[in-house]
Amino acid sequence: MRLFDFERAPNPRRVRIFLAEKGLEIPLVHVNLYQLEQLTPEFRAINPGCTVPVLETDDGTYLTEAVAICHYLENAHPEPALFGAGALEQAQILMWANICEIEGLGAVQDVLRNWSPGFRGRALPGPVDHDQIPALVERGRQRCGMFFDRIEGQLAHHDWLASRHYSFADINLLATVDFARWVEIDATAGRQRLRDWYRRASARPSASA
Amino acid sequence: MRLFDFERAPNPRRVRIFLAEKGLEIPLVHVNLYQLEQLTPEFRAINPGCTVPVLETDDGTYLTEAVAICHYLENAHPEPALFGAGALEQAQILMWANICEIEGLGAVQDVLRNWSPGFRGRALPGPVDHDQIPALVERGRQRCGMFFDRIEGQLAHHDWLASRHYSFADINLLATVDFARWVEIDATAGRQRLRDWYRRASARPSASA
Repeated sequence: MRLFDFERAPNPRRVRIFLAEKGLEIPLVHVNLYQLEQLTPEFRAINPGCTVPVLETDDGTYLTEAVAICHYLENAHPEPALFGAGALEQAQILMWANICEIEGLGAVQDVLRNWSPGFRGRALPGPVDHDQIPALVERGRQRCGMFFDRIEGQLAHHDWLASRHYSFADINLLATVDFARWVEIDATAGRQRLRDWYRRASARPSASA
Repeated sequence: MRLFDFERAPNPRRVRIFLAEKGLEIPLVHVNLYQLEQLTPEFRAINPGCTVPVLETDDGTYLTEAVAICHYLENAHPEPALFGAGALEQAQILMWANICEIEGLGAVQDVLRNWSPGFRGRALPGPVDHDQIPALVERGRQRCGMFFDRIEGQLAHHDWLASRHYSFADINLLATVDFARWVEIDATAGRQRLRDWYRRASARPSASA
């Protein structure tokens, strides 16, 4: 089993945090996105979507998508449960994980990739180059604000995002909050519950992954 | 248990197809998105994200996100399994379901909402109005082409998208292919395997949901 990884990117970080929470270590294969190594013919054969993370399982299957990789690892290593116990908690974790991925990480990505000169011509991940669309920067910042406001509301219910237990949803949120710093958004500013949550989440040893 | 639904929208349709595959019927609550009923204070209290589908469970919990709702229903009604059996198949279904949601439905949505006069000022779902960004129309069409090409490649492996069995991933793909017709994209044109898949998926009684 190997994980194709890039240490600076938020999506593989979700898997690395998950591994740290489980106390697992698996070999990492470094794919340097700064050098566009995800676009080489060799990597396209592994993942035509040209993204990391990718998990190569022991039977040689390639899994992409952090949620799928982590769910696979949870089945092999059930403790501690990070996808919940029981139908309702499992659904709430998938729900908040999905909201974080689409509304949170997706919004920050829109800001970063359409704003940073480093992403000129690479406004989307994947095999094809796309020009930046400047209007997405301001829209992305608005979306970030809405997303973090929604999270602030949700955190009124319990200490962790989806339930009373730390879960994959919290991992997604931590990746989002830290990713937002890249575009100079402090998600915790003016949001007391999110600030308290962030202190708790960041204090876990897994947060350094 | 109730499902907040709008019959014209692709996301609640994913849940309705899932229910039909399971042979389940649950009461539907009609939320007329054309009349912006998702923005009323009553509905915001149910889902601050202002989207359908929403499942109200018997204990009064509201679940959003089609993947979470369907996973919850699968736990209560395991047969036929639409989220797979075994760690690898489950992960592959979550993987392809996620790719369809983000790369497929997301791309079609970008085209439709930034192109159709009916979505002027509503270029994103959710509680806040956003102006259309015309550059997203062409980019969205390119993304749709890339997405369906990737699907065509994947369908070389087996009759259904994620494994040898019809699954939630196929439901997401069916919703995407039919949604693409709204923006005059025929996903099956020039893609023989996708055309054959579409014929099989559409022939199932659940496809009329």
